[in-house]
Amino acid sequence: MATRWGIAGAGKIAHDFISTLRSMEHHEVVAVADEYFPQNARDLSKLHGIPTIHLTYDELASDTNVDIVYVAVIQPYHHTVGKVILNRGKAMLMEKPFTLNPQFTRELIELAAQKKCFMMEAVWTRFLPSYRKMAECISSGQIGEVRYVNANFGLALDPGCRNKRLAVGGGAVLEFGIYLCNVCCMAFGSERPIRIAAVGHVNDEGVDETTGILLQYTRGRLANLTASTETALPCNAVVVGTKGKIEIPGMMWCSPSVITPDGVTHEFPFPDTALPCNYDNSSGLRYEAREVSQCLKEGRLQSAIMPHSETQLLSDMMYEIRKQIGVFYPQES
Amino acid sequence: MATRWGIAGAGKIAHDFISTLRSMEHHEVVAVADEYFPQNARDLSKLHGIPTIHLTYDELASDTNVDIVYVAVIQPYHHTVGKVILNRGKAMLMEKPFTLNPQFTRELIELAAQKKCFMMEAVWTRFLPSYRKMAECISSGQIGEVRYVNANFGLALDPGCRNKRLAVGGGAVLEFGIYLCNVCCMAFGSERPIRIAAVGHVNDEGVDETTGILLQYTRGRLANLTASTETALPCNAVVVGTKGKIEIPGMMWCSPSVITPDGVTHEFPFPDTALPCNYDNSSGLRYEAREVSQCLKEGRLQSAIMPHSETQLLSDMMYEIRKQIGVFYPQES
Repeated sequence: MATRWGIAGAGKIAHDFISTLRSMEHHEVVAVADEYFPQNARDLSKLHGIPTIHLTYDELASDTNVDIVYVAVIQPYHHTVGKVILNRGKAMLMEKPFTLNPQFTRELIELAAQKKCFMMEAVWTRFLPSYRKMAECISSGQIGEVRYVNANFGLALDPGCRNKRLAVGGGAVLEFGIYLCNVCCMAFGSERPIRIAAVGHVNDEGVDETTGILLQYTRGRLANLTASTETALPCNAVVVGTKGKIEIPGMMWCSPSVITPDGVTHEFPFPDTALPCNYDNSSGLRYEAREVSQCLKEGRLQSAIMPHSETQLLSDMMYEIRKQIGVFYPQES
Repeated sequence: MATRWGIAGAGKIAHDFISTLRSMEHHEVVAVADEYFPQNARDLSKLHGIPTIHLTYDELASDTNVDIVYVAVIQPYHHTVGKVILNRGKAMLMEKPFTLNPQFTRELIELAAQKKCFMMEAVWTRFLPSYRKMAECISSGQIGEVRYVNANFGLALDPGCRNKRLAVGGGAVLEFGIYLCNVCCMAFGSERPIRIAAVGHVNDEGVDETTGILLQYTRGRLANLTASTETALPCNAVVVGTKGKIEIPGMMWCSPSVITPDGVTHEFPFPDTALPCNYDNSSGLRYEAREVSQCLKEGRLQSAIMPHSETQLLSDMMYEIRKQIGVFYPQES
């Protein structure tokens, strides 16, 4: 039986996700809602042939035809919209970053448990074949003990774009840092850093544009990360262990390839999507969608690959980084 | 006329430097001294046919046959030995890192000026053809404005080695960090970082073994560095500008190659030395030796490529890093 998706928030990533789902078997998009931009919901419905349009997220979450809601509203509203969905007892896939801060994240995790709803943060990279290969290399001990991670994600974005605006949840840490922190959580087996140090360049609005991050783990293990919405960086990730290293050679946030310790580059090309996508390699969203339907089928409340504890850890790390560079969002207070 | 060298401190690097000088024209090693290990001076003298052995550094500095003293004692004694040499009005090439802290460095710079002596810190990488090529690419504007530097230098060294001992001036920052900070000074045109953040793993002796460093420059420019005496790192350096990047692909502390923005790898093989060396690519020491003899010939008191201001800047940066991770040497107090 197909997984029946409802879409909350009809922006660019929603379009890409729907386009990806349409290229997969056993997935259907049955409803869409956008409370703030209802025209976007109508447009998406028309473009993708989605049968139902709801006017509110609450209506969407109450739709018995919907198995799971994909929340693709902008970051600052994840917490509010998440509560609406969960309060109706509906399963939820929440776009990353999960919420703005650890307290909001904790509230949603508790609510999902209380309502016995499946819930997952859409850290799609974690499900990409390249990242699965990396995880496999690490867990099988092929590179020995992980000692060091270096990763960077930087694009030279237009000055006026959303990623540079505070009110809509921009910022290098929220937008790109999540991918860097995710690699570290994967590489260091979900350990919590013992110390975090960050320096960031904050624009006139109060949004960080270029941020350097050091994560110190026990026994001298270290991660060294850079996120930027200002400067085009190599966008690679390297995980160094006592016996070798693994590299994601570029576009680390959506890379179809990984270089294993033997120096071999493994390529995992992404299939086509139903319609052209807004973002690079969005077809890779299919792997998280597949995990979701698998979890739902098995009646699980969280994914073993991206469990709630990881979501909380990422949330904690990103908040500490932001706190150190002095970035706070109006929706937090 | 040949440059006549005196050698203060007859350890491994002294051997490599002498071996390199012997493979060059217009360089002679005329005297050697090691106050703490006189047998080492006798051994080096015999091995390399150095005509004179002095018992003290003061005697060496007083030798009218010596044009310049190369100071190759261990770091903690640079300041003391430096004063002895300069007080005799003798030119000096001081091994890096210059001294343990900014105050010691300032004292030597002032003394050299007062005595009108040529003095230079032996940051040999700065004179390597690969680094000259990098400097040329940057200054000619080929990569636009430099926005980001990522560099790492890490070797998995034996637990008991000198680099892990406090009394003899070990530590990842002093030993390896100097190379990382040097790349940043070169890339950012000797600008002073507006903020430094460092986290380090300090061993039982109080020496840092793995240290992560963030250097923040104005307008969101950033450097992200890692030094380790514990973990073998890729040891590469990348300088990213608005129009392209330059890479030192490996062994960044002595690399014969550089990758220019057009993707071309330029190789500058090092000539052979008279005898085999202790350290990798020590033949590259020839380029700093050549700069020294050129400066002496022209009667200059400092090198334009490695001026005193740069030495002070490096000293200031490394001290700030060490202070943040809590590493202090007994010889400082």
